[in-house]
Amino acid sequence: MEFKAKDIAALLGGVVDGDPEVIVNNVSKIEEGKPGTLAFLANPKYEHYVYTTQASVVLVNKTFEPAHEYACTLIRVESAYDAIATLLQMYEDMRPKPQGIEQPSYVSESATIGEKPYIGAFAYIGKGAKIGNNVKIYPQTYIGDGVTVGDDTIIYAGVKIYSGCVVGKSCILHAGVVLGADGFGFAPEGDHYKKVPQIGNVVVEDNVEIGANTCIDRATMGSTLIHKGVKLDNLVQIAHNVVVGGNTVIAAQTGIAGTTKVGENCVFGGQVGLVGHLTIGAGTQIAAQSGITSNIPEKSVLRGSPAFDYPKYQKCYVMFRKLPEMYGLLRDLEKEVANLKSK
Amino acid sequence: MEFKAKDIAALLGGVVDGDPEVIVNNVSKIEEGKPGTLAFLANPKYEHYVYTTQASVVLVNKTFEPAHEYACTLIRVESAYDAIATLLQMYEDMRPKPQGIEQPSYVSESATIGEKPYIGAFAYIGKGAKIGNNVKIYPQTYIGDGVTVGDDTIIYAGVKIYSGCVVGKSCILHAGVVLGADGFGFAPEGDHYKKVPQIGNVVVEDNVEIGANTCIDRATMGSTLIHKGVKLDNLVQIAHNVVVGGNTVIAAQTGIAGTTKVGENCVFGGQVGLVGHLTIGAGTQIAAQSGITSNIPEKSVLRGSPAFDYPKYQKCYVMFRKLPEMYGLLRDLEKEVANLKSK
Amino acid sequence: MEFKAKDIAALLGGVVDGDPEVIVNNVSKIEEGKPGTLAFLANPKYEHYVYTTQASVVLVNKTFEPAHEYACTLIRVESAYDAIATLLQMYEDMRPKPQGIEQPSYVSESATIGEKPYIGAFAYIGKGAKIGNNVKIYPQTYIGDGVTVGDDTIIYAGVKIYSGCVVGKSCILHAGVVLGADGFGFAPEGDHYKKVPQIGNVVVEDNVEIGANTCIDRATMGSTLIHKGVKLDNLVQIAHNVVVGGNTVIAAQTGIAGTTKVGENCVFGGQVGLVGHLTIGAGTQIAAQSGITSNIPEKSVLRGSPAFDYPKYQKCYVMFRKLPEMYGLLRDLEKEVANLKSK
Repeated sequence: MEFKAKDIAALLGGVVDGDPEVIVNNVSKIEEGKPGTLAFLANPKYEHYVYTTQASVVLVNKTFEPAHEYACTLIRVESAYDAIATLLQMYEDMRPKPQGIEQPSYVSESATIGEKPYIGAFAYIGKGAKIGNNVKIYPQTYIGDGVTVGDDTIIYAGVKIYSGCVVGKSCILHAGVVLGADGFGFAPEGDHYKKVPQIGNVVVEDNVEIGANTCIDRATMGSTLIHKGVKLDNLVQIAHNVVVGGNTVIAAQTGIAGTTKVGENCVFGGQVGLVGHLTIGAGTQIAAQSGITSNIPEKSVLRGSPAFDYPKYQKCYVMFRKLPEMYGLLRDLEKEVANLKSK
Repeated sequence: MEFKAKDIAALLGGVVDGDPEVIVNNVSKIEEGKPGTLAFLANPKYEHYVYTTQASVVLVNKTFEPAHEYACTLIRVESAYDAIATLLQMYEDMRPKPQGIEQPSYVSESATIGEKPYIGAFAYIGKGAKIGNNVKIYPQTYIGDGVTVGDDTIIYAGVKIYSGCVVGKSCILHAGVVLGADGFGFAPEGDHYKKVPQIGNVVVEDNVEIGANTCIDRATMGSTLIHKGVKLDNLVQIAHNVVVGGNTVIAAQTGIAGTTKVGENCVFGGQVGLVGHLTIGAGTQIAAQSGITSNIPEKSVLRGSPAFDYPKYQKCYVMFRKLPEMYGLLRDLEKEVANLKSK
Repeated sequence: MEFKAKDIAALLGGVVDGDPEVIVNNVSKIEEGKPGTLAFLANPKYEHYVYTTQASVVLVNKTFEPAHEYACTLIRVESAYDAIATLLQMYEDMRPKPQGIEQPSYVSESATIGEKPYIGAFAYIGKGAKIGNNVKIYPQTYIGDGVTVGDDTIIYAGVKIYSGCVVGKSCILHAGVVLGADGFGFAPEGDHYKKVPQIGNVVVEDNVEIGANTCIDRATMGSTLIHKGVKLDNLVQIAHNVVVGGNTVIAAQTGIAGTTKVGENCVFGGQVGLVGHLTIGAGTQIAAQSGITSNIPEKSVLRGSPAFDYPKYQKCYVMFRKLPEMYGLLRDLEKEVANLKSK
């Protein structure tokens, strides 16, 4: 796909400042810009790249005033950031999308498939599964018995959904996601453990995106529940009976232990751990690698393991780095006090 | 499946207190109880839910004395907790189990398959593999050449077992588990690394459960060894030549580096890390997110990174939170001592 | 495969000290040696095992002088460590390698496959994919549209490579690896998040090994880039637009957030976390479980979360363990100073 600068400007309601006929066929980052690509400048910190970039076209805010000479063609728009997001979405929308049913694939007779499906080769759809309209099921995906998948959801290659789980509309499940494996429940019995059967399921509401190789366990009873709009990154662990509130965002490799309830609009960094049976208030933000071991009120901002108030943690950690110095000071004082006492 | 309260009571040797004819068709948690479901009250902390739950039937200990009015039918049993575990197991046992060989699947001519197998579509069983009786191999599973799987083991969808590995009887491997990938062994050679071939295998003994997307690497030589009754949660990493002792339980996202030997009956929290070449005594308990960098005697209870004695860690961490205050105190004392000296 | 001690000695340019006709058919670790196996002694720390091992043959340095009696046959070589590495490689090279195209597999008409391929059953190769010579693609692997794979690369079972990604020559991708899932990019829009399309790809250069279930996300624009010779362990997370420099080694469960650039020849322990948009200098070493939150100069050696100079961290942590004692000392001093002042 090739575009002239003037066509892109027209598309975005922008103005060309340079050669309107120059052609681009891809986008690039301004610091890595190559001829034939379009880059953008949204953050003033990157302005110096405008004067050296090899990109043929650069989107800039209409207020941009160059301080030096530059070689590229500019397109001036209201907001360069919004414009590039629009272009990315257009580019994405124009990419060919798979459709149809590839063979061999395995669809149980009692499964129901909506309109305009894509079912990739070696996909498996179990008994009584209900697949909505316009769902894309990539190759080697496993949809267990009785699973429901809502309209417009994309399930990438190799996702495994155990029986009885429910996935909403317009969700994206990335490769290797596992929904509905047994919760980690064992009762001690003498010197060994006896498995507690896990007969619940996982319910994922609409507009949820789940990253590659993330695992969400089924509930012991009832449902492990991921509310609408939640975004989970790769390699996240969600244990049985956890509830994640709407529009909460959780970065990679974070783990949430059983039955913990996370409120809406929380943001967790990577590699965070939460123990089980907690309640985390809405709007809580947790720094990467923190550990949460108690209930948390709304809108908390936390760091540490165990985590506490973020700015306080920062102060404590500054002091942690001074500990050898503090210890020396303490020993000195001890001597001086002994001296004073002896006088 | 529907049951009357009186039938459940008969099954459990309990007594109905309320309507013996009320019908339930599922179980629920007492705090989320819905009409037509059975809940249970084992922990006195949840007693107040009895008076408000929508569940039709609640299992209680026979000694339970209600303090308020309630709407549900009670079934009084010796132990509500044991009774619900019994019911869950019965429910689990009654769920239909897959059986037979679905097509297309790939079974090498030289593989041997025991009685009553389930082999899901798109499963692959390599040359010389030996599969015991009553084994369930879900779709898209890869069983490499020469792998042995014991009787009654369940291998969920998409598990990958490299050649030569051994899995015992009555094991459960959840979706996405990888057994027998190469250990992470490289020898420096000039400015780059040369791979050290990994020619050992993984041996998993009987009654082991392995969580979704957990990885256990093959040994460089010999075997990476998971003893009987071990329970591994999701996304755990077990490196080459590690030994995990019998009935040890390891929570999600924990990692154990090469050649470390973990004793029996240990319990590790989530996101714990152990460096290589250590010996961890039997019965050791390690708190979540801890890091282990030295050999550990039996029955230790540890926290921190590096970890040390749990109660001592708790005290140190309390002090860590007081560090800014301590620093202020120290500075004040310094001034006062300087004052005293100048007098 | 069976070998006589004299044949192995000839192969390695070594000298037999004992029975030249003794036969071995496998290798073992000296501490676990069994009759019929060959073990080695490279580290003097393990010397005592020579006198008790059941291994039939032990490779030793030619300078080895036994202090006690021993039962095994010795083969004396220049370097026992190099010799065992040579033997492991020979053993590995002699193992039968899969080849040919198993059915059913799915190869798009527009894909091109090089010479001597192995394509396992249920593998999927998308439109326009280009597979080099002597590539091994194990069962249930997904190679998306337009993916390029270089000569001599091994892709184990169940790897998923999204469209447009590039894998170099002589790479090894272990089971469950996901390359090219969408970067974790969302723009807030009112009370929820809007997905930022991720139109870049992943480029993996030559001689890279990637561990089981590791995830490398595609770039928002441009490429997430893994340079030649990089070794990634299992369950590692590499976010969008990250660059990992040549011959860098990263242990299991480490995560690198978006756009961070890691230099050449770095070594990261397990469970390390790096926040986004950082630059990590070449030759940096980071201890396990550390957290990196700022740019790092070349050849740094770091520990902690946030991490700082390793030896300094060690000192601070020693003091952390003394905090309750320090606090007591401080309180005592405070009293004594108050006493002194009152006099």
